[in-house]
Amino acid sequence: MSTIPAPFQPAQRILMGPGPSDVPNRVLRAMAAPTVGHLDPDYLRLMDEVRTMLQRIFHTDNALTLAVPGTGSAGMEACIANLVEPGDEVIVCVAGVFGARMKDVAERYGARVHAIEIPWGETLSYEMAKGYLDSYPTAKMFCIVHAETSTGAHQPMEELARLVSASEMLFVVDAVTSLGGMEVRVDDWKIDACYSGTQKCLSCPPGLAPVTFSAKAIAAMDARKTKVANWYLDMSLIRNYWSADRAYHHTAPINMTYALHEALRVVFEEGLLERFSRHRRNHLALRAGLEAMGLNYIPERSLYTLNCVRVPAGVNEARVRKELLERYGIEIGAGLGPFKGQAWRIGLMGASSSERNILMVLTALEGLLRDQNVKFPEGAGASAAAAALKKMSLVSFDELS
Amino acid sequence: MSTIPAPFQPAQRILMGPGPSDVPNRVLRAMAAPTVGHLDPDYLRLMDEVRTMLQRIFHTDNALTLAVPGTGSAGMEACIANLVEPGDEVIVCVAGVFGARMKDVAERYGARVHAIEIPWGETLSYEMAKGYLDSYPTAKMFCIVHAETSTGAHQPMEELARLVSASEMLFVVDAVTSLGGMEVRVDDWKIDACYSGTQKCLSCPPGLAPVTFSAKAIAAMDARKTKVANWYLDMSLIRNYWSADRAYHHTAPINMTYALHEALRVVFEEGLLERFSRHRRNHLALRAGLEAMGLNYIPERSLYTLNCVRVPAGVNEARVRKELLERYGIEIGAGLGPFKGQAWRIGLMGASSSERNILMVLTALEGLLRDQNVKFPEGAGASAAAAALKKMSLVSFDELS
Repeated sequence: MSTIPAPFQPAQRILMGPGPSDVPNRVLRAMAAPTVGHLDPDYLRLMDEVRTMLQRIFHTDNALTLAVPGTGSAGMEACIANLVEPGDEVIVCVAGVFGARMKDVAERYGARVHAIEIPWGETLSYEMAKGYLDSYPTAKMFCIVHAETSTGAHQPMEELARLVSASEMLFVVDAVTSLGGMEVRVDDWKIDACYSGTQKCLSCPPGLAPVTFSAKAIAAMDARKTKVANWYLDMSLIRNYWSADRAYHHTAPINMTYALHEALRVVFEEGLLERFSRHRRNHLALRAGLEAMGLNYIPERSLYTLNCVRVPAGVNEARVRKELLERYGIEIGAGLGPFKGQAWRIGLMGASSSERNILMVLTALEGLLRDQNVKFPEGAGASAAAAALKKMSLVSFDELS
Repeated sequence: MSTIPAPFQPAQRILMGPGPSDVPNRVLRAMAAPTVGHLDPDYLRLMDEVRTMLQRIFHTDNALTLAVPGTGSAGMEACIANLVEPGDEVIVCVAGVFGARMKDVAERYGARVHAIEIPWGETLSYEMAKGYLDSYPTAKMFCIVHAETSTGAHQPMEELARLVSASEMLFVVDAVTSLGGMEVRVDDWKIDACYSGTQKCLSCPPGLAPVTFSAKAIAAMDARKTKVANWYLDMSLIRNYWSADRAYHHTAPINMTYALHEALRVVFEEGLLERFSRHRRNHLALRAGLEAMGLNYIPERSLYTLNCVRVPAGVNEARVRKELLERYGIEIGAGLGPFKGQAWRIGLMGASSSERNILMVLTALEGLLRDQNVKFPEGAGASAAAAALKKMSLVSFDELS
């Protein structure tokens, strides 16, 4: 075999699926700066700046805040592998793919998992959470997904935080699809371990997983009787590399860290509150447009960052996604698990959450649904895009807060 | 806290340490192409092309050849975690940091490790290897580092391959510092699992770990009685994503894969044999220059890609490295473990292996050593750089083969 593949030229896309989201040019450019050594003084300074910005976005003072060298799921595994020892009891709320994944990961590290199984798309009620906390008072951890990417639902965190913090349990939260698009208040919610990915609301390419651990989580790690059954994600080793010692562990994904640094700079230039408001406003506008076409949201408490709607009866949903991608260059996500073939997931994350993208996806979707002879609701009147535009201009201050 | 860090502008560096190596501009540019979805048809085609090129560089037909979403050590962990089950006996040759790491990782997954401890910088003898193979005939795996980054030594693989393949054991080889700079013949050497990193002789930023598994290794994975105790690196899941199914596992480090694709294109445009010859010739030239200054190599069988030399008596080695970095922008590596403070490790990997870099590092080093009043050997005559240049022009065909 002697042929060499041609240079890669990706098609032009608008990323409105469940992640990755569109990456700003300045982030791509920052990533392409020349690679330096992973112990270079310049790189060590960069790591410190990334840590400081991650602390701000997580709303935490946790010293142990850093980017794990893998994608979001590596962040999940880092949190669980370092806190679970064989035989530990762990409560996990399972309301979608990522809750189920937390359970799977915890079991691989030897946990006895008490799963709170709730229907996909629903959120955990106060009573149910309290019931599990009361039933398993010796559990070491309580794990939940803040923003479930597979269903588009988000959990009421304040209420849950009060409940869990009244126990001795470690509170572990998946913020993969919320961090950078919705508030994640690690210290206020008394979260002990929280992880995210770079490729969702931070609008950075995938490849790093921001994580943060409380002092209580560190104490639990320090009190381990067994070595972490995962060398690559062993926080006792990763910590030493991110600490003043800079002890060699792995070779960091250097250029990815350049990208994350720039992506975080973009976040703070916009401002956190402005960013959350934008995500909220754009979600309301997209929602108005989708509902004008008669599309219904699956979760009652929808994320602002991901919109999970039911596919109208009789529609070939795969064909719609394929045509959106091939004709318009717009990527949206399919349903997973029980929603396979039943749902679309439309992401409005980070840079992808824009008025332009909303108008484009609504216009394209409306055309493709008309092609498939979908009947729109009587009296919907104007087009989906017009409904979105109208909502955008009418969003009230109350709706944004 | 309201200040935002300034944009990151790394200093200009020449990377001649133990990795990362210099990344060609075209690889950095390829990496900065717009991010597409991890299930985008364009991206799936890219993955296939990466696989094909990895097969060629590993000299293998193994279908299960891919890039694990983490740095080189994640490749090590992927190989070991998927092949070891609790209680398995494993033979590991420990002759430096990375052999010791293989032992540590195998133990974390419950292996009973029989370590062949040999002095750092030495290579495993035929007799010693045979002794261990005979003493532990029930061992499941034989693990060795082809190119030990901490000592600069490389193992005689053909001989060892014949020995191990005469047993039933799985042969696991670390090729982090050799792949792309020296021959790694997975099929000829009957290797069952082999891993590498992108940031050494492939001259791509760190963040991915090429791995390949033989049919025998896959059979061993399929025969596991226990789930792999590592979700992120579970090859049964990663395989499905890289297979025709494209089953969602993790969000791939998309832009890193763009970079690896271009870095592999660079390798094949040069040609594998031409590339290995270049690494060999440049190693001999650097060696001539270093020896002209009286610097001695620590390992008897030195890698072409990494040159580990003893620091002359009385020299402040840290100061030399610091001045090389600060004045000349040249990074070289320090000694690790027993060689801490005793050795320098000078990398000639991928794009960093060039005549220009050799002349620059030798000239700079000679000046800095003269500053510290190092006496050079009598009769060395011309400068270190001149010795290197002379060697470069005189390298014989025999020396290159």
